[in-house]
Amino acid sequence: MNVHIVVMAGGSGTRFWPVSRHHQPKQLLRFANKKSLLAQTFDRVRALATPSRWWMVVGESHAKACAAAVPKLPSSHVLVEPQAKNTAAAIAYAALSVRRSDPQAVMVVLPADHFVRNGPALCDALKKAVRLAREDRIVTLGIEPTYPETGYGYIERGKPDRAVQGSFAVKRFIEKPTKERAIQLVTKGGFDWNAGMFVMKPSIVETEIERSLPDLHVAMRRIEAGDAKPRVVKREYATLRSVSIDHGVMEKAKDLAVVPVSCGWSDIGSWNATGSVIEPDGAGNVTRGQTILVDTTNSVVYAEDGVAGVVGVDGLVVVRTKDATLVVPSNRAQDVRAIVEQLKERGWDAYL
Amino acid sequence: MNVHIVVMAGGSGTRFWPVSRHHQPKQLLRFANKKSLLAQTFDRVRALATPSRWWMVVGESHAKACAAAVPKLPSSHVLVEPQAKNTAAAIAYAALSVRRSDPQAVMVVLPADHFVRNGPALCDALKKAVRLAREDRIVTLGIEPTYPETGYGYIERGKPDRAVQGSFAVKRFIEKPTKERAIQLVTKGGFDWNAGMFVMKPSIVETEIERSLPDLHVAMRRIEAGDAKPRVVKREYATLRSVSIDHGVMEKAKDLAVVPVSCGWSDIGSWNATGSVIEPDGAGNVTRGQTILVDTTNSVVYAEDGVAGVVGVDGLVVVRTKDATLVVPSNRAQDVRAIVEQLKERGWDAYL
Repeated sequence: MNVHIVVMAGGSGTRFWPVSRHHQPKQLLRFANKKSLLAQTFDRVRALATPSRWWMVVGESHAKACAAAVPKLPSSHVLVEPQAKNTAAAIAYAALSVRRSDPQAVMVVLPADHFVRNGPALCDALKKAVRLAREDRIVTLGIEPTYPETGYGYIERGKPDRAVQGSFAVKRFIEKPTKERAIQLVTKGGFDWNAGMFVMKPSIVETEIERSLPDLHVAMRRIEAGDAKPRVVKREYATLRSVSIDHGVMEKAKDLAVVPVSCGWSDIGSWNATGSVIEPDGAGNVTRGQTILVDTTNSVVYAEDGVAGVVGVDGLVVVRTKDATLVVPSNRAQDVRAIVEQLKERGWDAYL
Repeated sequence: MNVHIVVMAGGSGTRFWPVSRHHQPKQLLRFANKKSLLAQTFDRVRALATPSRWWMVVGESHAKACAAAVPKLPSSHVLVEPQAKNTAAAIAYAALSVRRSDPQAVMVVLPADHFVRNGPALCDALKKAVRLAREDRIVTLGIEPTYPETGYGYIERGKPDRAVQGSFAVKRFIEKPTKERAIQLVTKGGFDWNAGMFVMKPSIVETEIERSLPDLHVAMRRIEAGDAKPRVVKREYATLRSVSIDHGVMEKAKDLAVVPVSCGWSDIGSWNATGSVIEPDGAGNVTRGQTILVDTTNSVVYAEDGVAGVVGVDGLVVVRTKDATLVVPSNRAQDVRAIVEQLKERGWDAYL
């Protein structure tokens, strides 16, 4: 039974404008590393599977660039989605493709644009998950929370699993909590962040999809009958609803397992989160490129091009690229989307 | 008796980094206008003197660019200072040059990098000053204050002058006041801002220089004896002390007159002062170029190149050029100098 790595690279990542752009989604950004987040995602689990068993699900517009970022990945393993239809469709399409390629597969599904400081710890947890998946379990990884984050969903641990030490039954999924509730969860313990990492046999998740999302199941069977030809994939994708794997499948699935792990994980959800990827200096600043900071604290200053000079600010994000500059307070870093919306409205497409 | 315009263009203007640079001092900036501040300075007083009577005192490194900005100015009227030795030296050198060119001259001395909204009002005041200067008076213009600014010196009005309505004897010069004192001055009335604009016969100011700054007088006589040849000018300038005309001459001079004027004047001393040049919008923002402001108030956002996107800030200055970005709170706009100092220290000369 062979482990296959499936990386979900469908994101566009407007939250990292102006560095993330239409032609350069978040998973292709490098941050502190020489390699893109996408390439790092494969690299850190190479102990689990050789590149011949690497797969990628990616949107049409980024397929070429994402494939180029992982040159060792077989070209037939680049699964191109003609439209973004959320994670349930992407995982269904991957399950179908991996199963046809290797009926003995266990697949490890990973998001393409997250950061993990401790790769070996993640691999150890994934190995436990693989052992459970071999017994026909669907396994999710749970990130042990380090603070009461309100931007993530949580997974409540149930009883410890006897077969594999350090694994638990999933009691339930909890949607993004309020601040108060998040504090409760973290204080109480037994709740982990849902990081969208899953391990399972393709056939097992396909069975769950058949049960919970029959329309998606039918579409996938048509794709399979059509030998997954691009024309057929395109036709069927046009009919799909946009449903997340969590909401559409996992929350309804039975007998799920969770393997908690502490591996320095971050989804790097905004510029403000770059402090989890790049070590802040003594003043709490995270800087890249040619920057000059005077009387500046707790700020992110990123000069991809030229120089950025910042005086007398606290908690500010300043990003400079060859053609654009972003300035936003850290606690409003999510609102960079408003800029991207305005760019679209004004037709300033060159900056998208 | 002919009016000559002498514009003091010796400044370097690091306070407008990154737009003002070594090769582009503040007087060559355009702000809202199609013409540079330098060209605007001549343009607004063209009713007083034809270009054949225009003069410019400028540093060696900017002489070419400044001369090019005012093409109608006779090339022999570009007075190049080999070193910057402050305004006393510059005015002494101009007085010598203008007198030799036209013994009947009255000279109007103006800074090159200030802004005046109401040019005709300034011309009217200068005409009054010229009438007084013809009677051998040294005349300074006083800007009627609109708020208690602490960054300017003040001039106290003495008795009204009988000869020219709207002019006064100068009672005394007051150095940059504290906030408390500035409020007193503005509330009391009879105090005007010292804007560094003077009107006088060359010979009259030369006499005052001889009395108050004999060293400078001697150096100028040597320059005159040497026919103002560059070699001689260079040799003599090397010996000069750096003294301002206010401190070195005007504060000690007798029988000075002041003509108060209200003409929408600003010295545009920092990015924060651009609101006096470019009308702020309803949210108090001053913007130039391609900018996107979301939930942003009382800010200056200037995109000379590319696009600047700003979200959720108040009272911030954001300036973007082709190779640099500046971010500084409005109330610390003067501290841009700290950035320039750091650039020098690090040897990042390309950004200076």
